[in-house]
Amino acid sequence: MKLARKDLLGLEGLSREEIELLLGAAESFKDVLKRKIPKVPTLRGKTAVNLFFEASTRTRVSFELAEKRLSADSVSVSAKMSSHEKGETLLDTVRNLQAMKMDFVVIRHGSSGAPHFLASRIDASVINAGDGAHEHPTQGLLDIFTMRERFGGLDGLRVAIVGDILHSRVARSNIFGLRTLGAKVVLSGPPTFIPPGVEELGVQVEPVFDRAIEDADVVMVLRIQKERQDGNFFPSLREYAIQYGLNRARAAKLKDRCLVMHPGPINRGVEIEPQVADGPRSVILDQVTNGVAVRMAVIYLLSGGEVEHGLVS
Amino acid sequence: MKLARKDLLGLEGLSREEIELLLGAAESFKDVLKRKIPKVPTLRGKTAVNLFFEASTRTRVSFELAEKRLSADSVSVSAKMSSHEKGETLLDTVRNLQAMKMDFVVIRHGSSGAPHFLASRIDASVINAGDGAHEHPTQGLLDIFTMRERFGGLDGLRVAIVGDILHSRVARSNIFGLRTLGAKVVLSGPPTFIPPGVEELGVQVEPVFDRAIEDADVVMVLRIQKERQDGNFFPSLREYAIQYGLNRARAAKLKDRCLVMHPGPINRGVEIEPQVADGPRSVILDQVTNGVAVRMAVIYLLSGGEVEHGLVS
Amino acid sequence: MKLARKDLLGLEGLSREEIELLLGAAESFKDVLKRKIPKVPTLRGKTAVNLFFEASTRTRVSFELAEKRLSADSVSVSAKMSSHEKGETLLDTVRNLQAMKMDFVVIRHGSSGAPHFLASRIDASVINAGDGAHEHPTQGLLDIFTMRERFGGLDGLRVAIVGDILHSRVARSNIFGLRTLGAKVVLSGPPTFIPPGVEELGVQVEPVFDRAIEDADVVMVLRIQKERQDGNFFPSLREYAIQYGLNRARAAKLKDRCLVMHPGPINRGVEIEPQVADGPRSVILDQVTNGVAVRMAVIYLLSGGEVEHGLVS
Repeated sequence: MKLARKDLLGLEGLSREEIELLLGAAESFKDVLKRKIPKVPTLRGKTAVNLFFEASTRTRVSFELAEKRLSADSVSVSAKMSSHEKGETLLDTVRNLQAMKMDFVVIRHGSSGAPHFLASRIDASVINAGDGAHEHPTQGLLDIFTMRERFGGLDGLRVAIVGDILHSRVARSNIFGLRTLGAKVVLSGPPTFIPPGVEELGVQVEPVFDRAIEDADVVMVLRIQKERQDGNFFPSLREYAIQYGLNRARAAKLKDRCLVMHPGPINRGVEIEPQVADGPRSVILDQVTNGVAVRMAVIYLLSGGEVEHGLVS
Repeated sequence: MKLARKDLLGLEGLSREEIELLLGAAESFKDVLKRKIPKVPTLRGKTAVNLFFEASTRTRVSFELAEKRLSADSVSVSAKMSSHEKGETLLDTVRNLQAMKMDFVVIRHGSSGAPHFLASRIDASVINAGDGAHEHPTQGLLDIFTMRERFGGLDGLRVAIVGDILHSRVARSNIFGLRTLGAKVVLSGPPTFIPPGVEELGVQVEPVFDRAIEDADVVMVLRIQKERQDGNFFPSLREYAIQYGLNRARAAKLKDRCLVMHPGPINRGVEIEPQVADGPRSVILDQVTNGVAVRMAVIYLLSGGEVEHGLVS
Repeated sequence: MKLARKDLLGLEGLSREEIELLLGAAESFKDVLKRKIPKVPTLRGKTAVNLFFEASTRTRVSFELAEKRLSADSVSVSAKMSSHEKGETLLDTVRNLQAMKMDFVVIRHGSSGAPHFLASRIDASVINAGDGAHEHPTQGLLDIFTMRERFGGLDGLRVAIVGDILHSRVARSNIFGLRTLGAKVVLSGPPTFIPPGVEELGVQVEPVFDRAIEDADVVMVLRIQKERQDGNFFPSLREYAIQYGLNRARAAKLKDRCLVMHPGPINRGVEIEPQVADGPRSVILDQVTNGVAVRMAVIYLLSGGEVEHGLVS
């Protein structure tokens, strides 16, 4: 089976079959990563550019590794080094990179829709590595991959997402993917952080955190952007930690096999207590490990790669 | 045939045979870049350092790609990360890099002559990737390559270069290369941007832009450095655009097969109108594509590579 | 023979056998670097991350080259790009990198002990590339390698180290390594720069520079951090140069085969005169060359590599 898409811009609009194809390929690449030499020659001669207008060690390194392990050539450009300081438009920057025969453009950008804008204008495959408060589809896929790995399937799974839903591209990508695969999604957080009308996406809102996580199979804790602590969104970090922090007391009440997830970087002691982040329920580092396999799968399938009998060729 | 040079510091002083050897090798590498796996193992084990004291996404990425496609190892150092902040001299920095057995030093520097200073003091091949207002020889070569690709040869071709000639290393490298290959060069721009006595280089100066481009086979539009808009060089960007901007009206009067070129990054709406930059005469993105092949040719020939029957071996 | 260690955190505590194993492997890799294709496939599929919280062109590039020449994949993260700006702890950053299956973490950090903190908490091999004023073991090894190359052995060699001993991780690593191999170490510098009680490390203190270098086989000149020139540590750079600078007059009085070393970057005219830095006694660039071979040896042996009959396999 192949993925009939040029780009991965979001999980919104992806069919169940498409998501499952991506997850299946990721499973196969996870096996590759366990080999003594965790590389395949599949994309030799292909070139990817990682264009990061927002800094992100984790995501950039994860993509770079995925590219190297597929034997692609890889070039990274950070915002500061880019010609944007010289007033060049985003489209010109990317057209230029494509003129150098880039096959993949991995882009992280502060503006929602920047990757979509590009995707319709260049031939290279565009992979959204986070655009504004819109989507972060490879993060969504790696989160879902991590849940599927533990539970087998997503149908009927109850996933509580807590925190700043309003500004979270991670939450949005998860909501789209999880709903498509049949999971139930419960959102919790301060009312200022819950987008009005979000229920239309097929999710439930439960402002009382303890109630939201009561029957959860997964609790996904979002990172608090400390810069939002200006009094408009929430009173103080301390207050937030008391009301919405996943602490030991709350974790102790979770269902037996309930997983704790976080997209990182973690604010220890704010949205999650260290003992919970590092505790037995936590699959936070599995998420990171799975990220490389998921990104290999995305690049592989966008390049026209096939999956046969659950194996990448 | 081989290039009997250690360094490429400028197009000044290169013979017609040398330039043609470089262009021929670039043609051969352009074919390599069209292959399914656009790489050759030619420079395996050789190491290049890209030492950029001025930021430039385009040029740095183009060199990095050229190096990777020749299978060389490549290390990039930007000014900010360099030891210059610790007060080390340029020569010490480069001597140190050479002591690590670098074969190629690609250097962009704000001071004219910095690459020449190094070239006489180290064994590694030095490639000038832009030095002050002096030369940018790989840009000149890729421009000439792009013209030759369209016209077959340069003899008698009429090339109009418009804009800030005074501060343009791109203009200087083009002037040297174009004159050597027999093209006629006409310069235009505000009088403050025309270096006094430039006619001694064998070029014509025509202050009236419309007259300069009348019979042109190529119009090369230079980037306006917005930081020069201080009243000393030209009244305003708007004024500049009216007098020297290549707009649709002007483009409509160009000769039928006249090419429009620009070294980038483009200030859309200042020195060139978007419709012209993206129009049918524009070969701006071809310039970028050809840049990788030209840089492969430069590195290949400086490393002692041969061209036989028009083919790199 | 193998090195029974996961990490290289310092030269303190390394046995003579361990240091000699490392030096022997480096000798073997130095031969590799003289080959036409100076690479070995030994570490194909292994991944190293270079995590630099302090900028250092020289050391970062040296490690990157060592990794590339061992055919390892290599990812570099500089402090500014890291998630530290987002408040993530060092341990979380590194745990994340390890979750992506990094085999080696090369870390430079402003805090003494940062590499030790990590080493006990992650499975990857940690290599200290400089931690605060504590140790810089690969620099110490390359210095010792350079001495051994010239003198055959270290036993009884008299090494004078001059400058800011107090803040120098280079001095500390050298002291530990040199003492273990039987060299005599004499420290000199302004009294404010000599750590109280340093004699307990088995070294001699000789405040009068001319006396310290009288019978020296090696004079190792340390870099003066100009930012210390605040009146608390030494009166002025000029004063320092007069009292402790290795100038031509002093160099002329050194023993015939006495070597001059400096870890770089050099402040020409402050701690060393240009004519001495570039003179016949100077092995400063040999130190840089040897750095790549030494770092290859460290990575190779930490990965479980063996040395048989003085050869890496």
